Amino acid sequence: MITDTTVFGIIGLGVLGGSYAKALSAKHYKVLAVDINTSALQEAEKNGWITEGSMDPSLLSACDIVVSCLYPHTFINWIKEHQDVLKSGCLLSDVTGVKREVMQAVNQQLRKDVEYIACHPMAGRESRGLAYADEKRFHGANFIIVPGENNTAAAIATAHQLAEILGFSRIAELSPEEHDRMIGFLSQLTHVIAVSLMNVADNTHLAAYTGDSFRDLTRIANINEELWPELFVLNKDNLSREIDAFVAEMKSFEKLIQDEDYDRMKQKLMLATKRRKAFNKDQEKGEEKK
Amino acid sequence: MITDTTVFGIIGLGVLGGSYAKALSAKHYKVLAVDINTSALQEAEKNGWITEGSMDPSLLSACDIVVSCLYPHTFINWIKEHQDVLKSGCLLSDVTGVKREVMQAVNQQLRKDVEYIACHPMAGRESRGLAYADEKRFHGANFIIVPGENNTAAAIATAHQLAEILGFSRIAELSPEEHDRMIGFLSQLTHVIAVSLMNVADNTHLAAYTGDSFRDLTRIANINEELWPELFVLNKDNLSREIDAFVAEMKSFEKLIQDEDYDRMKQKLMLATKRRKAFNKDQEKGEEKK
Repeated sequence: MITDTTVFGIIGLGVLGGSYAKALSAKHYKVLAVDINTSALQEAEKNGWITEGSMDPSLLSACDIVVSCLYPHTFINWIKEHQDVLKSGCLLSDVTGVKREVMQAVNQQLRKDVEYIACHPMAGRESRGLAYADEKRFHGANFIIVPGENNTAAAIATAHQLAEILGFSRIAELSPEEHDRMIGFLSQLTHVIAVSLMNVADNTHLAAYTGDSFRDLTRIANINEELWPELFVLNKDNLSREIDAFVAEMKSFEKLIQDEDYDRMKQKLMLATKRRKAFNKDQEKGEEKK
Repeated sequence: MITDTTVFGIIGLGVLGGSYAKALSAKHYKVLAVDINTSALQEAEKNGWITEGSMDPSLLSACDIVVSCLYPHTFINWIKEHQDVLKSGCLLSDVTGVKREVMQAVNQQLRKDVEYIACHPMAGRESRGLAYADEKRFHGANFIIVPGENNTAAAIATAHQLAEILGFSRIAELSPEEHDRMIGFLSQLTHVIAVSLMNVADNTHLAAYTGDSFRDLTRIANINEELWPELFVLNKDNLSREIDAFVAEMKSFEKLIQDEDYDRMKQKLMLATKRRKAFNKDQEKGEEKK
């Protein structure tokens, strides 16, 4: 349960950690932060986004809720090396974009007097660093809580409360398996597609002819090359299955073009159009009704 | 050369034909239109988008410049059946999205006293019909002129002038081969990707978890199922080559994930990010400099 006197700790003041800090401090919570980058700590403190910052993890011993905003392997290593600083009974959360392996690794080694509740705020962006922290990106975004076998109802409820305080619009609970399968399709497959479309050949000479569709399709090819390989490997069973299925679908459509099979192409295009409507946002629906 | 007294003819008052009519009539040109749909003609006349409309192609005998806004095969059939109505010395243009086969078919059978100048206004949208006609979509868009071997300098100059009158922001000339290769990658491959992403499985249950990236990537899966199979087949050599190359690139990236080859994944992501920057619009560049 989060109360007015709850003290938050943020590990890693990057774009997400910084956004958490800004959102929480704007609501007058005490926010402590640790990072290996002193200038980020100074910047955040100067702007009032954190109450206090330090390179020394022991600062977090005062915190009731600690959120790791580190990349997956860095998070797991941090637990190994620094979990002794955490207050007994504190709640640990995170922001990592894949869950099964991370949850298993963290839960295997975490002290029994600290509970870990896995969360995935789906408000990432490719720009890195505190300078891009912007808690307004949480508005309209999804916050996924991923309870594990050992989680208490109290911890899950606190995660819901945290998401509301941060300003997320939709809060959902998924199992680790459901989460990683969903991310494999919606997020990881689409990033591999955008990256492959850029890498298949140097087509930058075509930029002058490019319309909004191509730009929309490849915007996410602007990608964090440090983070995403970790995320891909940690979910490679799901992602590989999605790539295989997608490639098979592309090849079967190619066959229809080769065969000049207008009827089946037409059916495929109608099915795609119909399914895509389910993903429309209100704004797009309005446009189509016009 | 277009002058104040030039009379325009539009064949087919759909979304593009209607947009041409609106743009030209707004600049006080006389615009005649033929369509098989009388209610579209009445609607356009009532709104002042055309001067006169008819189901009878002979109306176009008064026109100096005639623009076919029909689908490729319908355009080719129209020439076969109705080209006798065209005024001697008139200029014929079009809006079809693939060029090599269309230009060959039209030029093979067109009267020698009528010149055809192939054009591709890259301002298509998936919504169909006069109700969606909107000449403002030409602003910021590309107009490609695709001269053939037989085109006169005068006809090419008139096509430039037409594009300016319509309000296009960028006007370029490409050979039929360059045009179709460019379209095969930028437009057709991307539509096959978006459609395949929708068709690979029914993932509409994931709509609640979908962020802007997935929506951006699949917006063009809302596709005109009558038009696009024609466009795909008319460019199947280019499109098939692009699909094969793209699929190979996806599979090679999948291999890196399977092999946990972090270094090469990182290189691929950096290359994609770098190349994607060349496609940025000014607005996006501003965002990234922030």
